[in-house]
Amino acid sequence: MERQLARQWLATAVEEARAGVAEGGIPIGAALYGADGEVLGRGRNRRVQDGDPSLHAETAAFRNAGRQRSYRGTTMVTTLSPCWYCSGLVRQFGISRVVVGEDETFQGGQEWLARHGVEIVVLGDPECVAMMKLFTAANPELWNEDIGV
Amino acid sequence: MERQLARQWLATAVEEARAGVAEGGIPIGAALYGADGEVLGRGRNRRVQDGDPSLHAETAAFRNAGRQRSYRGTTMVTTLSPCWYCSGLVRQFGISRVVVGEDETFQGGQEWLARHGVEIVVLGDPECVAMMKLFTAANPELWNEDIGV
Repeated sequence: MERQLARQWLATAVEEARAGVAEGGIPIGAALYGADGEVLGRGRNRRVQDGDPSLHAETAAFRNAGRQRSYRGTTMVTTLSPCWYCSGLVRQFGISRVVVGEDETFQGGQEWLARHGVEIVVLGDPECVAMMKLFTAANPELWNEDIGV
Repeated sequence: MERQLARQWLATAVEEARAGVAEGGIPIGAALYGADGEVLGRGRNRRVQDGDPSLHAETAAFRNAGRQRSYRGTTMVTTLSPCWYCSGLVRQFGISRVVVGEDETFQGGQEWLARHGVEIVVLGDPECVAMMKLFTAANPELWNEDIGV
């Protein structure tokens, strides 16, 4: 896909991540875009806000999109490279593409997804990197809890 | 682990699956057991009941267990072999073992988990097989939706 469009879509995920910061949460946001370019769902990590360990940002966006008959042609946009849980989500449901804000501070299954035919677009966004670096430096225990380390 | 204990734990997941059947839902149940053998959380697929595609049974059990600092020594017990999404959950959070009611009607990532050091115990439970066969024969569209096919 065009990087300009990917950057536009990333802005939605970044808005979610910023809202997470404002709530004292883990600063990761995501949005699921339909094949037609409309947002199907958006969300952010809710471990702190809801005490819910299952709501990584990608799962929150997927959940908020509600039931869909097919994910063919959809794009998961996320501020941070997806962990194995969210990578498994993408593979199982046949989400076609993942736009990654940054993969410098963390990587889960993005290479694995690429090998299984998912288009991966990595943007190396400085704000996404900065949010994660600030957060993990200030909250190493919480971050490790969120990724099962 | 001993198969007798695995069968005892499976009974909890089967109770969840039966409750799902009674609600008109997808008949898959799960429970997360702690290293000490206590149930941390249990749940069932809630796609139909809540319109929530993210709540596969294993994710529902994980969610209901709330925040945990570590999953070392825990066991995910599920009536059906975990899909890629729920397999990714097990890998990311370092859940040590998966007890599988049956892997005859569906398989996702159980072999992949075994290669990554997760103990997999497959029980071949006839009730679990029967629940899935009845369900998928009667509701092929709903089943395909739940696994992204």
